Amino acid sequence: MPKIMKRLNIISRSQSLYRQRCTEREGIGELTPAQHTLTLAICRAPGRSQDELAKELCLNKSTVTRAISALVDSGYVRREPNELDRRELLIYPTEKMLHALPLVRKIARDWAELILAGLTEEEIAGFEVILSKIEENAKCAISGEVDK
Amino acid sequence: MPKIMKRLNIISRSQSLYRQRCTEREGIGELTPAQHTLTLAICRAPGRSQDELAKELCLNKSTVTRAISALVDSGYVRREPNELDRRELLIYPTEKMLHALPLVRKIARDWAELILAGLTEEEIAGFEVILSKIEENAKCAISGEVDK
Repeated sequence: MPKIMKRLNIISRSQSLYRQRCTEREGIGELTPAQHTLTLAICRAPGRSQDELAKELCLNKSTVTRAISALVDSGYVRREPNELDRRELLIYPTEKMLHALPLVRKIARDWAELILAGLTEEEIAGFEVILSKIEENAKCAISGEVDK
Repeated sequence: MPKIMKRLNIISRSQSLYRQRCTEREGIGELTPAQHTLTLAICRAPGRSQDELAKELCLNKSTVTRAISALVDSGYVRREPNELDRRELLIYPTEKMLHALPLVRKIARDWAELILAGLTEEEIAGFEVILSKIEENAKCAISGEVDK
């Protein structure tokens, strides 16, 4: 059995450590590594529901609810009722999040550059083809699981 | 910029959802998805220190300390002083962890099978070569960071 998941999880956890180091240095230490992911997702398409964010990121709804509440408390996002369905709340970035966004994006770019060092463009492209197939398989395997 | 980290984190989070579903079904729901990783690492080489586990798994020492304390509280591991350095505690699995281990391993194997479906052995082998290079780069980028 290949050690693919072990390696993949190590890369993912290493990114968390890197994000933590960078945010502490840059004075946006309030944003936890997990909140970087949400920051990027919220700013990529503002005005989505928590359920849509949970589905995109493959997280439990309850995990996203807790994380969004923390971001509301620290002033990074605001919730607004959906005009089409007032029971649903949509998530928007505040000025504070938009201010932190360039740095969060830079940290993501710098990390990608570090981990892809020494690889050719061809190797990276071939790798991403297989990675996207694995991603599709993973999403398919847990479809419906984000409803919890 | 390729979306490699986004895809990779989605696969990692999907595995967490899958582990959660499986453990709830199988009655070892006490073990959180993150504790599966520790279970595999502790049983692979019993008698290591928390610092060694943190280094192998690319986790903060404080994260590992909290996780091990939770595993001690739920009866899955025990800490014993290192005979060579009594100030250091080494981590051993209890009978309860050894009892859960086959299921944790089966869940890991089943997941690997699900996500690699439809890929040829050659594709998987080529993918793992690049993945291990990325893993090395990631570990190198955060070297020293687990000391926090």
